[in-house]
Amino acid sequence: MKRFVWTALSELERRMALRRPGSTNDRSVEQAVREILADVRSGGDRAVQLWTNRLDGFDGNLRAVSGEHFEAALASVDPAVQTAMDVAIAAIAEFHQAQVPKDIEVETAPGLVCRRVYRPLKCVGLYVPGGRAPLPSTMLMLGIPSRIAACPQRIVCTPPRQDGTVDPVVLVAAHKCGLDTVFPVGGAQAVGAMAYGTESVPQCDKIFGPGNVYVDTAKRIVAYESDGAALDLPAGPSEVLVLADDDADPLFVASDLLAQAEHDPVAHAVLATTSEDLASKVTHLLHPLADALPSAETARAALEHAAIIVADTREQLAEIANRYAPEHLILNLRDAADFVAGIESAGSVFLGPWTPEVLGDYCSGTNHVLPTGGFARAWSGLAVEDFLRHMTIQEATTEAMATIGPVAATLAQAEGLAAHERSILARLHSLDG
Amino acid sequence: MKRFVWTALSELERRMALRRPGSTNDRSVEQAVREILADVRSGGDRAVQLWTNRLDGFDGNLRAVSGEHFEAALASVDPAVQTAMDVAIAAIAEFHQAQVPKDIEVETAPGLVCRRVYRPLKCVGLYVPGGRAPLPSTMLMLGIPSRIAACPQRIVCTPPRQDGTVDPVVLVAAHKCGLDTVFPVGGAQAVGAMAYGTESVPQCDKIFGPGNVYVDTAKRIVAYESDGAALDLPAGPSEVLVLADDDADPLFVASDLLAQAEHDPVAHAVLATTSEDLASKVTHLLHPLADALPSAETARAALEHAAIIVADTREQLAEIANRYAPEHLILNLRDAADFVAGIESAGSVFLGPWTPEVLGDYCSGTNHVLPTGGFARAWSGLAVEDFLRHMTIQEATTEAMATIGPVAATLAQAEGLAAHERSILARLHSLDG
Repeated sequence: MKRFVWTALSELERRMALRRPGSTNDRSVEQAVREILADVRSGGDRAVQLWTNRLDGFDGNLRAVSGEHFEAALASVDPAVQTAMDVAIAAIAEFHQAQVPKDIEVETAPGLVCRRVYRPLKCVGLYVPGGRAPLPSTMLMLGIPSRIAACPQRIVCTPPRQDGTVDPVVLVAAHKCGLDTVFPVGGAQAVGAMAYGTESVPQCDKIFGPGNVYVDTAKRIVAYESDGAALDLPAGPSEVLVLADDDADPLFVASDLLAQAEHDPVAHAVLATTSEDLASKVTHLLHPLADALPSAETARAALEHAAIIVADTREQLAEIANRYAPEHLILNLRDAADFVAGIESAGSVFLGPWTPEVLGDYCSGTNHVLPTGGFARAWSGLAVEDFLRHMTIQEATTEAMATIGPVAATLAQAEGLAAHERSILARLHSLDG
Repeated sequence: MKRFVWTALSELERRMALRRPGSTNDRSVEQAVREILADVRSGGDRAVQLWTNRLDGFDGNLRAVSGEHFEAALASVDPAVQTAMDVAIAAIAEFHQAQVPKDIEVETAPGLVCRRVYRPLKCVGLYVPGGRAPLPSTMLMLGIPSRIAACPQRIVCTPPRQDGTVDPVVLVAAHKCGLDTVFPVGGAQAVGAMAYGTESVPQCDKIFGPGNVYVDTAKRIVAYESDGAALDLPAGPSEVLVLADDDADPLFVASDLLAQAEHDPVAHAVLATTSEDLASKVTHLLHPLADALPSAETARAALEHAAIIVADTREQLAEIANRYAPEHLILNLRDAADFVAGIESAGSVFLGPWTPEVLGDYCSGTNHVLPTGGFARAWSGLAVEDFLRHMTIQEATTEAMATIGPVAATLAQAEGLAAHERSILARLHSLDG
């Protein structure tokens, strides 16, 4: 763990203090991913199976999880977990339902009506990562908004376990979101299957969900292929910035940093505080608490990159937050609700001591698919609108053409576009004649 | 020009009939762009100047257009053009003002409040292409929504003329949008300058606007660099699909196809019609009309790739539109307003004989920065929201923590994330104690 005093740092040192560990700009990853994608594009199911065998150790046919597997999952998963999921779903659904956008209609000139209408994406691919543990919560974060958006076709890919099956708790989450097509496929091969389509996997218009560097790289590549699929947002290692003052409970702060650190050795946990005393107390708590975790090894590795920054003022704390643009921002501060007015760049913000980030991971109602790596400067977290597209529509009457047509003709002439001008003049002459 | 009968085509032939000319997946372009970007990243202003000299033939210092140049432009541009701009601005501003999204707030459980708030992007870079003619209309399409979004810093880059100046009509358009920082820089070097920042050009969070393949490739590269800038949407050659029946005036249809064809030799103009008679009449009109244009050479080159498709039914017309997913879709059909209900994938739609696409290019009120190349399957045209980002905020009371905290703890346990669970338990114990 590194400790910094903000006021003592130069501009360059400040930038270094907020630098994230790891880097996803690895050309060898891109080469490997391009090979997998090319294979899947030309080989379809068979190529997906070969890569699944090679990378996930499962040698079997690519087929969607059967109805019996769903039923077995519903029967086997702890009812307490299923009940907790129901509570989480209710909150997430309520918050996402409020995001459904309205069509607009404006008469911009007499007889000239412009509309903007929303359409659900026709086929969406939802990627739920596997890795260390099953992630039913991510299934909910993708499944609920896509259901609210009413996308007519929704499919899921998630890495298989060694025996080729999908964790029952993930299947239960899928079922509760009305998702019944789940393929036990992960990695770049899953992205390729969803982007290009195979005999079994339908071609998707857009691919959603976080993933490791292979999945993320594959999503970025297919996003700009004309036969590929768009992407939701760039993914990267998880991160948290906790801003705290001397009111904050050191145990709460240390716990929140560790909840981030246990995700990944390159997860980034940063504390910025106006309290020297809090900084010391948190520092002393972190290692013993990390050692007591089942995920101690990961957490300790992540703590090596962690940073504690001591600042002089609340203004400096806000500056640190806006420069770093964290995925998760915890404001364990007095008057947190006022403070957030000065925050411009963060994925999701957690106010006060009683709103740990973990609430947002599961059940506050917000989406946990968020921009990492500083992308929160320009990107937003996942929302219902990401499963929709909008389209503008305009209609002019002859009266509108007569009045606004000459405006278009004048501007076309100023741009030297004669055929543009003539498409207007053809109408104006017809009206005159 | 190619002519097809939809019913007679196989699946593969249908795909080929709707294939766009040209391709932007050129690795040599990418190599060149990467070289320019690397130069600009390390060399700043000096590198931008060198590339501007090499590619645009202007050898001089990089500096923003001066106030005197703006004043001279306002004095020199034809008042009729300025008045036409004012009418266009009023319509565009009115339609885009209606897009401003509202913050939301939902109490998802007693004492647990979730909000979604919008923030303007802090610094946006607007790219206005040069090329054959000045494009003040593109300046309006970027300048108006960014002003409505209230982005605090907005800069413009546009290719210089040979003498290093910017066309006065473009400066007038900038001025009318409240834009006073315009750099006479184009191409990948402009994208690099906006993405990384230089001594003169501020670092932008997101880059907007269409451009040639160098600009587009550069935007795609910097979009996923952590020190780069996001992009608005992928750009490509312009395209139109006209759907017409035997009510349509062949001259209107031919004029609309040519307005597209004059843009670029790889622009794509497609007509799909249920009327054999209309198809023949349009075919006979196109070449003489093209020959009469100042842009005859470009238009004739584009017509070589143009397609006319004869369909049996209106349903087939809708199918063609949704498969092709055009940037511009003209419905020169009876009951066009009903027909549009079946359209899912298009950038912008023009209803009836009196709404040529050119109205949308300039002054109907809709935005003309639209997804091309089939990207309209998943992407939308430019909107005010693209200049904003949203951020979720949640706050729980102790009461909410007591009731919803255990839900989060249960789900954390199901995912095997002990530190997540403990960040909740630390709070629950504190409440108990």
